[in-house]
Amino acid sequence: MAAPVFDHIAIIGTGLIGASIARAAAHFGAAQRITLFDKDEEVAKRAGALELGEVCRSAAEAAKGADCVILCVPVGALGVCTEAVAGSLKSGAILTDVGSVKAKAFEAMATHCPEHAHLIPGHPIAGTEKSGPEAGFDTLFQDAWCILTPDSGVQKDYVDKIAELSRFWETLKSKVEIMDAVQHDRVLAITSHLPHLIAYNIVSTAYDMESVDDGQVVKYSAGGFRDFTRIAASDPTMWRDVFLNNKTAVLETLGRFSEDLAALQRAIRHGDGDTLFEEFTRARGIRKAILEAGEDSDTVNFGRHTK
Amino acid sequence: MAAPVFDHIAIIGTGLIGASIARAAAHFGAAQRITLFDKDEEVAKRAGALELGEVCRSAAEAAKGADCVILCVPVGALGVCTEAVAGSLKSGAILTDVGSVKAKAFEAMATHCPEHAHLIPGHPIAGTEKSGPEAGFDTLFQDAWCILTPDSGVQKDYVDKIAELSRFWETLKSKVEIMDAVQHDRVLAITSHLPHLIAYNIVSTAYDMESVDDGQVVKYSAGGFRDFTRIAASDPTMWRDVFLNNKTAVLETLGRFSEDLAALQRAIRHGDGDTLFEEFTRARGIRKAILEAGEDSDTVNFGRHTK
Repeated sequence: MAAPVFDHIAIIGTGLIGASIARAAAHFGAAQRITLFDKDEEVAKRAGALELGEVCRSAAEAAKGADCVILCVPVGALGVCTEAVAGSLKSGAILTDVGSVKAKAFEAMATHCPEHAHLIPGHPIAGTEKSGPEAGFDTLFQDAWCILTPDSGVQKDYVDKIAELSRFWETLKSKVEIMDAVQHDRVLAITSHLPHLIAYNIVSTAYDMESVDDGQVVKYSAGGFRDFTRIAASDPTMWRDVFLNNKTAVLETLGRFSEDLAALQRAIRHGDGDTLFEEFTRARGIRKAILEAGEDSDTVNFGRHTK
Repeated sequence: MAAPVFDHIAIIGTGLIGASIARAAAHFGAAQRITLFDKDEEVAKRAGALELGEVCRSAAEAAKGADCVILCVPVGALGVCTEAVAGSLKSGAILTDVGSVKAKAFEAMATHCPEHAHLIPGHPIAGTEKSGPEAGFDTLFQDAWCILTPDSGVQKDYVDKIAELSRFWETLKSKVEIMDAVQHDRVLAITSHLPHLIAYNIVSTAYDMESVDDGQVVKYSAGGFRDFTRIAASDPTMWRDVFLNNKTAVLETLGRFSEDLAALQRAIRHGDGDTLFEEFTRARGIRKAILEAGEDSDTVNFGRHTK
């Protein structure tokens, strides 16, 4: 095993992602010491019982002296969390996060991050529909992309810290990419945020059908619906914050989706089979590309870990 | 192994479903003799090479003398296929299908089905995103529901034939349900047809985003999008026919979906986090119900067979 990337990491928030980072960092030897904090005492206690690290009584205490502080909280809580750890951040410490929205994440953290620390937002594209510390596991990030969206600053020590954080994620078996925050938010709007919104929505629609009872929906869910319910089981707080904080890109993407859907609706209404056939045929191509690119490995697949 | 349910079955159409029925019937001993036909000579030849049964030169030849003729073709081809086999159907033969739409399927087949045969439409809710005879496997129907939508007639011999066809599917390890055709089409509109339409649509939307290139969509598809592409890889002809033949129920369901989506869009635009949180929380319930009902077994799961 290589030398640990960090002597000491602090994980604020011990849900699925925080717990998985703790487990992976221990398993792959990426950090010597792991301190933890969760504002929910119950959750913190469970994280302690799972021996994920040293549970602290405050975020400030957990962050004290850490080389890298990782905020694993919903995007809407990043500002408050940064404020809580700001006074404890040692000189040269990395402050990062794992949120699915990056432009607003940077803004929220930058407001409170002291100048002597290095703010490098991050986003591991991995997860399952489960929540809580018990859901964490050490191979969650294996073969998954982790996107870092650093500031455009090019000072030598900042660039060194980006390399260090990249090495940390690579030790956890992730593939690291550097990307502009705004572009990240556009890419994720279509590859993740819109799929989740739609999944949540179709489950709601199914609930409200008077002509089909919920039991029938559950019973015959194998025909496609079930795949959506898995995605729609994701953490509501986290996803509320994603939509509130990536509003522009999500609304733009959603507008296009609705236009395209209206065109399919029109084709169905007018019995225009050719249009339907052409659209459906086109969709096969992107699936082929995903399989060819090897982006369908099961380990990092959303919701497929639990088989 | 129990005695075969049928001495002789004929399978018209040797794609994923037809090939799987042939394999399952042989594997579980549900039929003594299997005759096959596919209008695509190339496909028929491949089915022969896979030793799925005796390949015949016409649908009429395959159906001749069969106790049960199973049409495994897109819904739009059911009328033509029934016409092709009508002259060969022996007295007391069962004519059934596997289509995802049942009211129009019944109509199309009833027009050409002779009085001395028993028309019992069927729909096994099982599949993968793969197509062709090579994609078939003998456990595809295991633990999956198979819905039969017989006519309302209650003559003794018709009722006996329904029981016989049920036994056939049960021998293939399916769970059989009898349902009204119109209700079937309503249930499937929400549990299968709408999910597929939406999956096809989001893939199209992603293709047409100028600000995000296709490579990025493929690369970062793990965040939810990938699950949709799997569903959207299903056979375009089959799905075109589903939408053309279940128009009323699909348009009704789609209208509700779009209304619900507009409400979420509005909540995002106005920063209404409470509405988003409530809707997302509600969606978790139905997932729980699916897990509790044991409807998430992997064997019959759409697209998850191929891991």
